[in-house]
Amino acid sequence: MKALVTGSAGFIGTHVSRAMLADGFDVTGYDQKDTDEPGVESVIGNFLDLESLTTAVRGHDVIVHIGAIGDVYLAATNPELAAAVNVTGSTNIALAAEAAGARVVYASTWEVYGDPVYEPVDENHPCEPDHPYNITKLAGERMLLAANRLRDVPVIALRLGTAYGLGMRPNSVFEIFIAKALAGEPITIQGDGSQGRQFTHARDIARAFVAAAKSEARGMPLNVVSPEMISIKQLAELVTERFPTEVTYGQPRPGDVTPSYVSASRIEEVLGWKAEVSFEEGMEELLSADRG
Amino acid sequence: MKALVTGSAGFIGTHVSRAMLADGFDVTGYDQKDTDEPGVESVIGNFLDLESLTTAVRGHDVIVHIGAIGDVYLAATNPELAAAVNVTGSTNIALAAEAAGARVVYASTWEVYGDPVYEPVDENHPCEPDHPYNITKLAGERMLLAANRLRDVPVIALRLGTAYGLGMRPNSVFEIFIAKALAGEPITIQGDGSQGRQFTHARDIARAFVAAAKSEARGMPLNVVSPEMISIKQLAELVTERFPTEVTYGQPRPGDVTPSYVSASRIEEVLGWKAEVSFEEGMEELLSADRG
Repeated sequence: MKALVTGSAGFIGTHVSRAMLADGFDVTGYDQKDTDEPGVESVIGNFLDLESLTTAVRGHDVIVHIGAIGDVYLAATNPELAAAVNVTGSTNIALAAEAAGARVVYASTWEVYGDPVYEPVDENHPCEPDHPYNITKLAGERMLLAANRLRDVPVIALRLGTAYGLGMRPNSVFEIFIAKALAGEPITIQGDGSQGRQFTHARDIARAFVAAAKSEARGMPLNVVSPEMISIKQLAELVTERFPTEVTYGQPRPGDVTPSYVSASRIEEVLGWKAEVSFEEGMEELLSADRG
Repeated sequence: MKALVTGSAGFIGTHVSRAMLADGFDVTGYDQKDTDEPGVESVIGNFLDLESLTTAVRGHDVIVHIGAIGDVYLAATNPELAAAVNVTGSTNIALAAEAAGARVVYASTWEVYGDPVYEPVDENHPCEPDHPYNITKLAGERMLLAANRLRDVPVIALRLGTAYGLGMRPNSVFEIFIAKALAGEPITIQGDGSQGRQFTHARDIARAFVAAAKSEARGMPLNVVSPEMISIKQLAELVTERFPTEVTYGQPRPGDVTPSYVSASRIEEVLGWKAEVSFEEGMEELLSADRG
């Protein structure tokens, strides 16, 4: 089986490419920069260019579409870019998949739900995104699921919990806290720190992509979240236990999404997936990493 | 007050430009083709080009954003075009409005709701669009409403009922039925003809845009629908009463949206608007039109 992974040079893309390779897939990495991962064939391209995307996708059985404007703050400052990449780009993926007869697994996000009207939030919960990031991620998901119905392209959308693990962006809350603590500078929590997230380890997320790529299931979104709800305050405490420093509190950031408890029951039924990496274990790995 | 109307050369854009002029606005028509309407200053442009759009919008107090891929069947065949025009294009409008300090009135659609979970459908009803047309129209609406919150651009979104009136596209069900009947050819109803629509006259819709442009209300969607639910069968009967011909039945078309009864209570409270043109009156005007 041949898989093409978009966004393969990024944090989640790297973990997913590795897991696909380990599972026996031939993996093509498709990104704007070189995919520097042993065993992955690197193709430099931009999925906003439908013609070259269609050529690149030819001969693949599955497209794992992770490439996106995934940084909430970049989406806020450049919403027109988020619209183009996340909506038109995902629509191009649908059309290229149709031409190749390929299946699509799409990286969506738990943030599509907006404020919860009931909890735990399952996949039937209404979606009321209110920020350029989650609005465009949901629209991209819906364009792909529409192609599942109208063009017979098999599509699964994975609504990912907040991902963490080695290789995260330097502006993730994890990397910021650890870098500040290591430098002996104070850690600043935005808001009161009580806001929680179901931080989901990148290796768990990667396993979900592999399972979705191999499944016959289609035409549905599936939540991919760890059951543990961790507050930002708890995260800061784990960091300062290891690298003692002061914790201060600042203003909440615009665009931060209200936490809601999200259920991963459906994916366990459909794909037999559940999270395996505990937050304690994942943090231990991050805190012990060589940052020389 | 100076208004810029996108899509001004189209069916709804023409009615809205006329109504804005009649209400005392200076009107600039912004379209890819010439806006041939007396009193309207025509600017030829493409709102996918943010830079030239920003220049064109400067000096206007309000942008009435009607330009879109509004043809459901074109959106189905070219979803990547619907994504670009309806989502990125509407995001560009938000940014150009921010730069100009202008208010935006956006032409959205009742089709954003998807299958009704309760009726009448009000503006708090969940939105579950499932077709490239309504998915992209909703995403464009949400990008604009996000700009209302995050960038302080005053935005109202009008969720229009199915518009009809003089100047409709030749591929509207009205124009197809009338043209067939006039030619003595059979009229074909797709499906069983029981599906209803709250057909809303273009002059009523135009009044809603004028009211929204002059209002201080912002940050909300408002349904703009006539209270009359008319079935396609009733529509065919009104046409064949005037121009007798045979009525036949065909397969339902993919992309046709399940009817639901939509409420216009909120816009009556907020803007004092309600539909004034009865369906009988609107049809009389269409059937009596000179089609030389």
